[in-house]
Amino acid sequence: MARTLCRIFKGCQSICSLPLMKTRLHPSASVLLRTVCVRRMLTLPLPFSPKARDFSLPNSSWGAEMRQLYEHYNSQCEEEMKGEEKQDWAWKRLPSYNRSLKYATGGVYLSKIIQSKARLFTRNIKEPGAAFEYVLFVSKDEQKCVCIFQAGHLLEGPPGHVHGGAIATMIDTVTGTHASVLSAPVMTANLNINYRRPIPLGSTVLIESSLNKTEGRKVLISCKVTSTDGSKLHTEATALFVAINVSHLLGG
Amino acid sequence: MARTLCRIFKGCQSICSLPLMKTRLHPSASVLLRTVCVRRMLTLPLPFSPKARDFSLPNSSWGAEMRQLYEHYNSQCEEEMKGEEKQDWAWKRLPSYNRSLKYATGGVYLSKIIQSKARLFTRNIKEPGAAFEYVLFVSKDEQKCVCIFQAGHLLEGPPGHVHGGAIATMIDTVTGTHASVLSAPVMTANLNINYRRPIPLGSTVLIESSLNKTEGRKVLISCKVTSTDGSKLHTEATALFVAINVSHLLGG
Repeated sequence: MARTLCRIFKGCQSICSLPLMKTRLHPSASVLLRTVCVRRMLTLPLPFSPKARDFSLPNSSWGAEMRQLYEHYNSQCEEEMKGEEKQDWAWKRLPSYNRSLKYATGGVYLSKIIQSKARLFTRNIKEPGAAFEYVLFVSKDEQKCVCIFQAGHLLEGPPGHVHGGAIATMIDTVTGTHASVLSAPVMTANLNINYRRPIPLGSTVLIESSLNKTEGRKVLISCKVTSTDGSKLHTEATALFVAINVSHLLGG
Repeated sequence: MARTLCRIFKGCQSICSLPLMKTRLHPSASVLLRTVCVRRMLTLPLPFSPKARDFSLPNSSWGAEMRQLYEHYNSQCEEEMKGEEKQDWAWKRLPSYNRSLKYATGGVYLSKIIQSKARLFTRNIKEPGAAFEYVLFVSKDEQKCVCIFQAGHLLEGPPGHVHGGAIATMIDTVTGTHASVLSAPVMTANLNINYRRPIPLGSTVLIESSLNKTEGRKVLISCKVTSTDGSKLHTEATALFVAINVSHLLGG
């Protein structure tokens, strides 16, 4: 199974040339791979449907702040390539799906039912606006990642406010995606989160991650969650990721 | 609104005598209050229905490990009081609902739609076994809390494994509940989580929290996530909580 995965990754690597094409696996890593492959219209047998819903695109639940910020970053993104590649982009939008690659099929621990029904935690609710609405952009030099996050009513912790675990989930998602862009397949090793100010349900916030350093197999990233105008600091965090051997994760 | 809440809390305190009856609010704090009040069949006007589903009770999705551990701890719990109070219990089960107290009604930021639809993050999916299946027990002296957690297929992060954010969510839930049992209403100030070994989807783990110290308004708790037999350490964490003034949270 691990060998199959490696072949898939190798196949994609060999035909992709963007800076984002490094081998990557973890949390949203598979999403990156999937995205890239789908956009390039590969003819390779892929482990996912090209018709899958991209959850990072605007929908009717998005409020004005979410839409405005999306337009702000999206307008600075790479355009769809028609013929020659355009180089003057500052950000790249990262699509988002609700399923990891379906290669975890042989694990001794994973039942067939769980395999077929598993969904990415942050995209496990279909109703638009009910839970995590978010879109990620990565900077051209990959040193920064920004996420626009609108917190739905199903994320409640303290009455009327977002659960600390939901905030941690978004921090893990943003920094993990960032680390996956920067490195080989990674796993989260440490999250250290300081909660400064609660986030009201329904509000939109910015989550920004910056590369602190890479050291051998380690990637250290810092992250902050602020109001959309940057005036209020809600949360600060550091996240440590470690590059892994895929076969360890798949138990094969 | 804050004043109304204080009246509710004060009312409950004055008629409750168990060690768990201290004033408490945050994350699952409201659940504790609710539980206590419902069990005592109060005649006060309460902000919640006594028919609400208790998500911590066994259901058909629970695997053998989850059931066995539940029985293990539940058999050491306080019995329902009929006449004289029985004192020889070691643990107390904490019921769990999918809604916080509905007192966050006056916030300038919170729309009526969000108010009415808000659900506790860890209980926002009705399908048994799909997401977070868990039950918490607190020790008689309140120094320890234990949670039996079965991770459903909708919590995926790395393929076939539980999302780091879902693990953080459970750690915040268990330690936050523990802090609420020990202290006044609290908010999470810091979570520091070391991920040692990934948790396969569908598996059952133990989450144990222990009081490290209290210092003024601060409560420091440590936590570990292990396999059910304790032989494998999945995650270690510390969590810092700070007692808050309820009116700050409600913006009143």
